[in-house]
Amino acid sequence: MNKPVNIDQLDVGFDIPAAIGMDESEIQTPCLILDLDALERNIRKMGDYAKAHGMRHRVHGKMHKSVDVARLQEKLGGAVGVCCQKVSEAEVFARGGIKDILVSNQVRDPAKIDRLARLPKLGARTLVCVDDIANVPELSSAAQTHGTQLEILVEIDCGAGRCGVTSTADVIAIARAVEEAPNLKFTGLQAYQGAMQHLDSYDARKEKLDAAIAMVRDAVDGLKADGIECELVSGGGTGSYYFESNSGVYNELQCGSYAFMDADYGRILDRNGQRIDRGEWENALFILTSVMSHAKPEKAICDAGLKAQSIDSGLPVIFGRDDVEYLKCSDEHGVIGDPNGVLRVNEKLRLVPGHCDPTCNVHDWYVGVRNGRVETLWPVSARGKAF
Amino acid sequence: MNKPVNIDQLDVGFDIPAAIGMDESEIQTPCLILDLDALERNIRKMGDYAKAHGMRHRVHGKMHKSVDVARLQEKLGGAVGVCCQKVSEAEVFARGGIKDILVSNQVRDPAKIDRLARLPKLGARTLVCVDDIANVPELSSAAQTHGTQLEILVEIDCGAGRCGVTSTADVIAIARAVEEAPNLKFTGLQAYQGAMQHLDSYDARKEKLDAAIAMVRDAVDGLKADGIECELVSGGGTGSYYFESNSGVYNELQCGSYAFMDADYGRILDRNGQRIDRGEWENALFILTSVMSHAKPEKAICDAGLKAQSIDSGLPVIFGRDDVEYLKCSDEHGVIGDPNGVLRVNEKLRLVPGHCDPTCNVHDWYVGVRNGRVETLWPVSARGKAF
Repeated sequence: MNKPVNIDQLDVGFDIPAAIGMDESEIQTPCLILDLDALERNIRKMGDYAKAHGMRHRVHGKMHKSVDVARLQEKLGGAVGVCCQKVSEAEVFARGGIKDILVSNQVRDPAKIDRLARLPKLGARTLVCVDDIANVPELSSAAQTHGTQLEILVEIDCGAGRCGVTSTADVIAIARAVEEAPNLKFTGLQAYQGAMQHLDSYDARKEKLDAAIAMVRDAVDGLKADGIECELVSGGGTGSYYFESNSGVYNELQCGSYAFMDADYGRILDRNGQRIDRGEWENALFILTSVMSHAKPEKAICDAGLKAQSIDSGLPVIFGRDDVEYLKCSDEHGVIGDPNGVLRVNEKLRLVPGHCDPTCNVHDWYVGVRNGRVETLWPVSARGKAF
Repeated sequence: MNKPVNIDQLDVGFDIPAAIGMDESEIQTPCLILDLDALERNIRKMGDYAKAHGMRHRVHGKMHKSVDVARLQEKLGGAVGVCCQKVSEAEVFARGGIKDILVSNQVRDPAKIDRLARLPKLGARTLVCVDDIANVPELSSAAQTHGTQLEILVEIDCGAGRCGVTSTADVIAIARAVEEAPNLKFTGLQAYQGAMQHLDSYDARKEKLDAAIAMVRDAVDGLKADGIECELVSGGGTGSYYFESNSGVYNELQCGSYAFMDADYGRILDRNGQRIDRGEWENALFILTSVMSHAKPEKAICDAGLKAQSIDSGLPVIFGRDDVEYLKCSDEHGVIGDPNGVLRVNEKLRLVPGHCDPTCNVHDWYVGVRNGRVETLWPVSARGKAF
């Protein structure tokens, strides 16, 4: 039997994967761990970049869903606040003390609009996207009801192919309606080119972003000709932030994945043809998993399956190992190819998840580790907040 | 603006998707809904089948992770208890009053073994699988520490390709060790052929199950020749239960997905070549989603993306509609093809998830509906219990 674990530490709350001060080898698996040194370096690096380029950085809180990580991004990375995708996420961040929150999405359900319009009462500047002029009176009415102000970014679909208008005429029409609507303020544009972030080639990403920037510039110019100024032009992700920062038209970034990295993002190439997880960003997020069965010599079974991660963007990669490979993922099991039979039962491995966002959303805790010890436990505060 | 919602009902607890008595149209999305009539029919039907065939039915609680659903399966379907895949799930079921619990998996971590050995103190008969003789003294030692008894099923890998031994000699060696170990009892065999459950063709599934049954029969006969009786031979899923039930060797089923159904299981064919979701089982589980943007005429954007479901086994299917199609899933958005522009903003759709198990694991609540009204709210009690 392995070294006995101090079960009484875990018994305090059956649902926590670790206790502060515990050795990394004692962490209960599967769970998410954060390499705090790597995380802090990523956050400082992006913060320094944004500052050097005169960009506001509104970090994407929907990636980590953690008030603690968002506050670290404010403290170390100079973040101006967060964006998120759901009103229920925004509530968590507002209650957690974040003061500038953009719901970078459409809000149309009456109950959600009502909740959104209450958010400024929690002390948060509250922004939301609009892509339909019919949404303007809905938002205005709720803001009047609650005596609050909502700031509006008109969303442009500059390539993501989801929400957003596609013509400058539509941008101007919505902006005008917002300017005339009580308790609303037109603040600018939301223009996130989501579809190109994961293209491997730097030049392919640049081509898509050049087209996006041209659309956005046309809208900014059109608004100006109409006497409407854009205070914020917001967008940009981990695969594109340098394009927006050098565009002369964007002034706010919305990067998320840079802080944690994942296997799918890590594969894209920088302008020198190098993977971005081999220099630009460090892997800070891992799924810690344990071998639970090795009944066949050539394969080990680990305890991290589909309920510990999302495989929509590919299988996880075993960090720092090229002798073993994660081959197959079922509900509660991962099959690891171990051709040389080197793994032992209860051995722990760090997995780099295929896609960080939906992986974080199935876990309740981040276990922050440094120098092999558990330094902190952060709740995934907005986990499951989907409304 | 749509019909106003009674926000004060939702304001009681910001995190619940509905209030009891509410009209289905007022449910906050995305969320899981259960058609209670369909669910009850599925549960009764499988219960009747098991009874008619003299089989115990230990329902797979890892699928729904709900104490309420498990108790309904006991009440309406004569279930003898549950199986689940994790010790932390077993704790939830034991605390919820389930009295016969099998952890149908290997437990090797010392802290988890300790938690497992405490479970009988909660009043639950506790069974666990073993595929490595080295696990026997670990389990025995913990059971002695807590003065409890653990019952052991030796796991046979009869085709799932994960945990489990592959020879009758190994089965006998482990069973003997269990019989000699204090505070352990050898109870039988775990033999779940997971890999064939989703093969479309009935005959292809039968061929795989015939091979599994032959392996299991050899093990049962070998044990008997060695003077060891199997009280339980447990296995079988929604795609195979008729094979195990007529095998003459299995006496316990472990079906899970039949109760909810999903799009991937629904596609497999019965012996008459008919999809199993067109007669054998009803879709009882849905992701309720709302249209949140329709800025382009031919596509609608809904609010159920990767954080409301798992797409490991394919995209969700829009229930009861052939005029619109769920085409693409990103973190918080679904793109719905709407070639005739029939959908409206805030319109609600029922999605049949591709794969029920990991989809249930991202939600906090089941909203039970009947005749268009919310009848019950059940927590996904073991959601996120991955240890």
